[in-house]
Amino acid sequence: MGCPAAVRIVEVGPRDGLQSEAATVPVAAKVALNQALAGAGLRTIEAGSFVSPRWVPQMATTAEVLARLGPLPGVSLPVLVPNVRGLEAALAAGVEEVAVFGAASETFSRRNINCSIAESLDRFAPVVRQALSEGLRVRGYVSCVLGCPYEGEVAPGAVRSVAAALAGMGCYEVSLGDTIGTGTPRQARLMVETVAEAVPVERLALHFHDTYGQALANILACLELGVSVLDSSVAGLGGCPYARGASGNVATEDLVYMLHGMGIETGLDLHRLRAAGAAICAALGRPTGSRVALALG
Amino acid sequence: MGCPAAVRIVEVGPRDGLQSEAATVPVAAKVALNQALAGAGLRTIEAGSFVSPRWVPQMATTAEVLARLGPLPGVSLPVLVPNVRGLEAALAAGVEEVAVFGAASETFSRRNINCSIAESLDRFAPVVRQALSEGLRVRGYVSCVLGCPYEGEVAPGAVRSVAAALAGMGCYEVSLGDTIGTGTPRQARLMVETVAEAVPVERLALHFHDTYGQALANILACLELGVSVLDSSVAGLGGCPYARGASGNVATEDLVYMLHGMGIETGLDLHRLRAAGAAICAALGRPTGSRVALALG
Repeated sequence: MGCPAAVRIVEVGPRDGLQSEAATVPVAAKVALNQALAGAGLRTIEAGSFVSPRWVPQMATTAEVLARLGPLPGVSLPVLVPNVRGLEAALAAGVEEVAVFGAASETFSRRNINCSIAESLDRFAPVVRQALSEGLRVRGYVSCVLGCPYEGEVAPGAVRSVAAALAGMGCYEVSLGDTIGTGTPRQARLMVETVAEAVPVERLALHFHDTYGQALANILACLELGVSVLDSSVAGLGGCPYARGASGNVATEDLVYMLHGMGIETGLDLHRLRAAGAAICAALGRPTGSRVALALG
Repeated sequence: MGCPAAVRIVEVGPRDGLQSEAATVPVAAKVALNQALAGAGLRTIEAGSFVSPRWVPQMATTAEVLARLGPLPGVSLPVLVPNVRGLEAALAAGVEEVAVFGAASETFSRRNINCSIAESLDRFAPVVRQALSEGLRVRGYVSCVLGCPYEGEVAPGAVRSVAAALAGMGCYEVSLGDTIGTGTPRQARLMVETVAEAVPVERLALHFHDTYGQALANILACLELGVSVLDSSVAGLGGCPYARGASGNVATEDLVYMLHGMGIETGLDLHRLRAAGAAICAALGRPTGSRVALALG
């Protein structure tokens, strides 16, 4: 199998994970989670978002979390920003990296961010431009890359267009989200092959949810294409709060278990990851979504 | 991906699944389960085992289940037999197929069936001989093909030896069991490649447990080698009662979802499978172990 020898894992639990949990997590627990994840070896941890607290109340404390965390040596703590106002809040909080997010499905775009795909790209362009001019790195997300809760299967060409637009604006990396987790391996592979016609595979990341138990198989299929950046969420926290039936991101522990078993380096310590997952699950009062964490007890 | 166009799924829920559930299932519910699985399109359903009820009390009613079921047109209902006494009970019950089971790990063999691997093969030989002479088909199982709860990782060559011995005795198919679910894709692939040196891949089946969430990824890796027979358990029932921490077989629903998504034919109806899984879970008073069943509600 032509998989990469090493991958970078982008931990999204503190943002994509916690934003869709019913329980509100105190700032101290969020700070502890980020510290524990950094301690497990993670070098990219999406720490929160600057979106309206009316829409995503769980992220309202992002500035406070970042302030209390302070800089973690060698660790990037990107935040999601939907618009210039969010970017300004992020700059005020001293972040070095932000992310913008579009969708590959028109209906999802309208329901999730209340505008068409084209309008959303028009809205991101000045955000990305300003962020780059301030010296930030910008990551792009595309959601619904394999399926949409409203439209069903999504055409790979639609994903390619949005990914190309985000890369063209200057996003250093485009993360491809199977938001509702309906994808299967051949489809995932075809989607990545199609997107890679417009954006080099080195600049692509996978952001797969495990709703249908397919995430690791889909990741395996795409690793063989050379993708080497993978988003995951400790304890399988989270999901998309707007997508009916969506459950969490693939669990970081399960992903790392597979990668280490395959001899693929991650730089992560599985036991410290499990401890980080156990602590946040205790804070949330929920069971872990990681099968590896369950099996190892 | 060089996957087969169609696969045969061997449903093991009524045996490998139910034998390790704490709850005892009434005969009527077992009969209904087998009928529902056949109705969903399954053509091979492991219906039970003729082992000592002292060791596996959940299988004590196998003869009664088979008698009440009667022949199901086009459906094979194999049963597990550990010895000649078990075979005789199976013959009395009118079965057309039996299975014998060995292990690739010495310690597991001693703890599970109380003899060495070599002794277990000596014990199976007359069972297989007699079964074949009575016109039955015989399937062989090898457990602990990727990991052992006592010895850790298992050498592929050890699996090859046992598989070759079973095939040499006349087993038409050898099912390779990741009993404790610790395997990962490269290891699974190497194991199958090694076993295929001695037994043609057309005669191999995969029997993977999902304890660490790796089963679908492992199956995907081996499908690409041409394996086309897959064991699974509706609702992810079961596991090995002797292996500490072992959880269920990969769920038939999750496997079928992946295969259909890849355009690989199974002949199965996912919705009827889900209904079969829901009914047995209700009878057991346990939640489903299938992510697809959970997601589809």
